[in-house]
Amino acid sequence: MFTIGIDLGGTNIVAAVVDEKYNIVEKAKTPTAMPRTPEEIFDDIARVSKEAVEKAGLTMADISSIGLGTPGTVNGGIIEYANNLGFDHIPAEAMLKERLGDLPVYIENDANCAALGEAYAGCGNGSKNFIAVTLGTGVGSGIIVDGKIVSGVNHAGGECGHMVIVVDGVPCTCGRRGCWEAYASATALINQTKAAMEKHPDSIMHELVKEEGAVTGRTAFDGMRRKDAVAVKVVENYIKYIAAGVTNLVNAFQPEILCIGGGICNEGETLLRPIRRYVEAERYSVYSTVQTQIVKAELGNDAGIIGAAILYEVQ
Amino acid sequence: MFTIGIDLGGTNIVAAVVDEKYNIVEKAKTPTAMPRTPEEIFDDIARVSKEAVEKAGLTMADISSIGLGTPGTVNGGIIEYANNLGFDHIPAEAMLKERLGDLPVYIENDANCAALGEAYAGCGNGSKNFIAVTLGTGVGSGIIVDGKIVSGVNHAGGECGHMVIVVDGVPCTCGRRGCWEAYASATALINQTKAAMEKHPDSIMHELVKEEGAVTGRTAFDGMRRKDAVAVKVVENYIKYIAAGVTNLVNAFQPEILCIGGGICNEGETLLRPIRRYVEAERYSVYSTVQTQIVKAELGNDAGIIGAAILYEVQ
Repeated sequence: MFTIGIDLGGTNIVAAVVDEKYNIVEKAKTPTAMPRTPEEIFDDIARVSKEAVEKAGLTMADISSIGLGTPGTVNGGIIEYANNLGFDHIPAEAMLKERLGDLPVYIENDANCAALGEAYAGCGNGSKNFIAVTLGTGVGSGIIVDGKIVSGVNHAGGECGHMVIVVDGVPCTCGRRGCWEAYASATALINQTKAAMEKHPDSIMHELVKEEGAVTGRTAFDGMRRKDAVAVKVVENYIKYIAAGVTNLVNAFQPEILCIGGGICNEGETLLRPIRRYVEAERYSVYSTVQTQIVKAELGNDAGIIGAAILYEVQ
Repeated sequence: MFTIGIDLGGTNIVAAVVDEKYNIVEKAKTPTAMPRTPEEIFDDIARVSKEAVEKAGLTMADISSIGLGTPGTVNGGIIEYANNLGFDHIPAEAMLKERLGDLPVYIENDANCAALGEAYAGCGNGSKNFIAVTLGTGVGSGIIVDGKIVSGVNHAGGECGHMVIVVDGVPCTCGRRGCWEAYASATALINQTKAAMEKHPDSIMHELVKEEGAVTGRTAFDGMRRKDAVAVKVVENYIKYIAAGVTNLVNAFQPEILCIGGGICNEGETLLRPIRRYVEAERYSVYSTVQTQIVKAELGNDAGIIGAAILYEVQ
């Protein structure tokens, strides 16, 4: 049998047919094209789902369940709230069944789906104690304990980007001050880079930005590679903030594997090696013979789709 | 049937016979009297266990399992490391069976046992998604997800006292800087109180300390009740630090119940009400209809013994 995994994002809706070995057979995609009504969005979800099934040379009779990854908070079959989709208590399960037939439907937060996908089909290699952290516009995270998603009593769990690491620190979009996201996201790195450049008009980073056109998550790393002392300091600080949050998660969960994804991870070992050094020095479990492995995420954007498609595994 | 729960502490060894409804039937106790060899300690553990069984009018034939709560890190039947007991890879399961017979033996970190006890037999009322935080000399924590203890891949999980909430903050005994424990423990409150008193020789707290003989975890709260502005500020700050960590845990786990224990909790609602206010304002799950309840721990020192005795429930 096959299942359908759907990644409902603020920009695109992607549906995929996934086989029993967690491989994507076929995908189909359409822009979310906000603002639209929930009905229009679910019509498109159904359309791309059917399109993926058809591209795979299958019919809906070959599909055993449907999984939906969505931003926001989910409660059973209801999407309680998703700010960037304008969703307020949307009966997503019923809307999917109406359009795609009476199949089992599973709905989860998208970051949790991505963690599940990486744990079962990506760098986790089937690991049952696993954390996925994504350093992007924000800091996303999903937690797997004993093979199940930690989503708590209200399906809003796993939001470790909004763990304060600097009490009274810089404001976060969530309303708190000093969240991990406000220090360790790509957005935060760009802000930290800009602030350092402003203070240091002689930094080589000014030249790099002239060539590139804008400050990006790569600017400080590129400056560091050119031995610019200001850039080195920016990167060191940024990595310290990432590592502080990672060590917090290790101390709380001691997962088998913690993976880090998002665009910043293209830096590979330049990023991961110093993070590992921090964690090794600071984790509480210094005397344990078994330790968390810190690795790079493997599946990219497919993690969420595969995770949604295999939600049936963790019910 | 009955089980034996053992709380192996740096000061005392307590054993209890516990019934199927999680009630303590009888207890026995002896000083740990460090420094001693592991053999001597386990001889005493066996002695007080048998004493508790006898006091309960039972024999070892009535006992179906033994649970041991210990400081440090546990790996299966081995206590890998427990600093304050001088333990380094102690075969605790074998040593218990040698002395008490071939019964099933379960060994867990003591903070995790305490959380299990509160979750199943205390304020958790059987809750399967539960966190217990203890504000004492340090900040202890234990986490229950889906009815099981989160102890991670190396049984060292649940150490949320060593979650950094102030990057580059004050030094913690664990080697990190800025741990929650370094701001929210009773020890931290005493340090914060002393620092404020030093800066403000006119604070009423100086009089209170003269009466009491020493600065304690109550000094600032008592000063606040006498409307001392310096004391009010100390308490407000201290509660802010507690709440920062509590909110972090809520955002990560969204437990059904989070309980707070330890001596400071004798302040009751004076402490809990402002913590709840912070968490309500700052949690990421503002739109969820179900929210974590924040309550006072109920079982005190018995939580760990009961939790050890019922470890068989979560295997």
